[in-house]
Amino acid sequence: MSKFWTKAVREANPYIPGEQINQPNLLKLNTNENPYPPSPKTIEAIKEATGEKLRLYPSPTMDSLRDAIGDNFNLKRENVFVGNGSDEVLAFSFMAFFERGSTIKYPSITYSFYPVYANIFEVLVDEVPLENDFSINPENFFDAPGGVIFPNPNAPTSLYLELEAIELILKNNPDNIVIVDEAYVDFAKSSAASLIDQYDNLLIIQTLSKSRALAGLRVGFALGQADLIEALIRMKDSFNSYPVDRLALAGAEAAIRDVSYFKEVTEKIINTREWTVKEMTKLGFDVLPTQANFIFTKHAKYNGEKLYEQLKKANILVRHFKTKPIDEYLRITIGTDDEMKRFIDYLKEIN
Amino acid sequence: MSKFWTKAVREANPYIPGEQINQPNLLKLNTNENPYPPSPKTIEAIKEATGEKLRLYPSPTMDSLRDAIGDNFNLKRENVFVGNGSDEVLAFSFMAFFERGSTIKYPSITYSFYPVYANIFEVLVDEVPLENDFSINPENFFDAPGGVIFPNPNAPTSLYLELEAIELILKNNPDNIVIVDEAYVDFAKSSAASLIDQYDNLLIIQTLSKSRALAGLRVGFALGQADLIEALIRMKDSFNSYPVDRLALAGAEAAIRDVSYFKEVTEKIINTREWTVKEMTKLGFDVLPTQANFIFTKHAKYNGEKLYEQLKKANILVRHFKTKPIDEYLRITIGTDDEMKRFIDYLKEIN
Repeated sequence: MSKFWTKAVREANPYIPGEQINQPNLLKLNTNENPYPPSPKTIEAIKEATGEKLRLYPSPTMDSLRDAIGDNFNLKRENVFVGNGSDEVLAFSFMAFFERGSTIKYPSITYSFYPVYANIFEVLVDEVPLENDFSINPENFFDAPGGVIFPNPNAPTSLYLELEAIELILKNNPDNIVIVDEAYVDFAKSSAASLIDQYDNLLIIQTLSKSRALAGLRVGFALGQADLIEALIRMKDSFNSYPVDRLALAGAEAAIRDVSYFKEVTEKIINTREWTVKEMTKLGFDVLPTQANFIFTKHAKYNGEKLYEQLKKANILVRHFKTKPIDEYLRITIGTDDEMKRFIDYLKEIN
Repeated sequence: MSKFWTKAVREANPYIPGEQINQPNLLKLNTNENPYPPSPKTIEAIKEATGEKLRLYPSPTMDSLRDAIGDNFNLKRENVFVGNGSDEVLAFSFMAFFERGSTIKYPSITYSFYPVYANIFEVLVDEVPLENDFSINPENFFDAPGGVIFPNPNAPTSLYLELEAIELILKNNPDNIVIVDEAYVDFAKSSAASLIDQYDNLLIIQTLSKSRALAGLRVGFALGQADLIEALIRMKDSFNSYPVDRLALAGAEAAIRDVSYFKEVTEKIINTREWTVKEMTKLGFDVLPTQANFIFTKHAKYNGEKLYEQLKKANILVRHFKTKPIDEYLRITIGTDDEMKRFIDYLKEIN
């Protein structure tokens, strides 16, 4: 604490990212990264962009990347906003659509960055309790006074909400923005991007960190009707004109355009996930019906924190949240087949 | 405009970056980029980092780069904050040190992003008029109610303020943060970084965009006593945990550590600047005594805007600001010797 700190700094309650431990032979299943490398075309595009031109500013409008993303979703450039990871896009969205002092709704168990944003941007929160099975009841999100935000699939629960339920939330919030944070949607049934034409209050946020295996490159984006995208551009240009560097722009565009590699990797992860769920169920774990690249699970026999610690000692890093009522659960990222086999073998060993 | 926009979006007055025109044979002297490529070691480090590890998040604490910057200034890691370009560092600094509703001071002619930040973060401004020769009179910055910010050298005037004057401003603002924005300081006499030990209210902001020829990589940093850096980290971690990607971290560290290349390039630019000033003076231009990688100049015979347009038609892009009293001036980035010869030749041709 210092006499120079503003109220915002004094009252900030910063986000704590998952541990980034560098250790040989560590099985890192704690931050929902992709176990496969980025598309070879991405690597090639970055290497090509690595040269003399780095002395020049990147494009502030990022048209080329926005066109690539637009093409991918059958949308136009004007429907696409690009930022430095989906976290930055979320921050700009809070500033652009959630009025200070208004009350927004999000699930009581959700991405732990939302309360951080609500705090820093002075937005009040009506936390909506989940059902007993951790599912979202759409009715509880109707008529939110200041807006709605939730991840789909939700994190860390891994549960997917059907588009019909999302439409109900959209219809019952005609004067509010409903943000659907689709960080994990490529591992699920379908994106709500197909609803953008019909709903002027829908903003979708996605990231290249998970399904495109580019957490290290920092690119996220938002999709919505043009006036929502314009609001985000106005926020960006009031904060930092060029948040995505030349290398990230080049790599991201190549990643988005390499649809076949993306599909191949995503399918592999989904298959490994299904195998992992089956094996864990056999071992007596209660695994929530996941549609993400991670599972959320508990075991009647184990205490969540103790199992987390035991795994860590065995060089297997997963994520544990100390908050009730999820403190008995572990969130485990899906790795490669070999990695998950090592994980399951260890569970068998201690079982 | 849309019913969904917050007051912040409606009232935003976004920054307008210099034109980024892609055109063969364009002489681009408008955004103060470095005319030389980045250090070969930077290119090498980025290529080395371009691989499978991009699937993993970057370091949220950026220790290795902070150590490199600390070493460069004889400071410790705890005295260094890193962000996505100095613009992002400036944005976090406004949030961290300038209380909403308080009144800060900056020069009436200065970097045009400051009013954008003041507006978005709802900070009031007492704009301090410059002297007739555009120099800063330190006394006018004493006892600022909410804080002080100015670039040194100032932009777009190119004028340098001596450290003695900066110390006077620091001493006469014991309860306020004084931000010295040193984007161009490597082309000037000396940085105020040597004063950090003595002044707990001094925050210095620098960028790798100019002297390190890395505008395309988006890396900036702040230097100050540890509790000021901690405030900036708290803001970053309330906004976006990883604003600098793996490639930018690797490239920036190599650039900072390659001191000899940096010195060589900076010296070349200073020499070219001195030659350019001499030639322009011969042609009757009034050139302010620059300590930046650009000059600020007018000519009794030319209207500023018309000369800007005429140069543009001749494929020479410089920057013109329409604001009084600088609308007669042009800001011209220093290019290579060949580029400045082409520029001077054109001026001779039309003279």
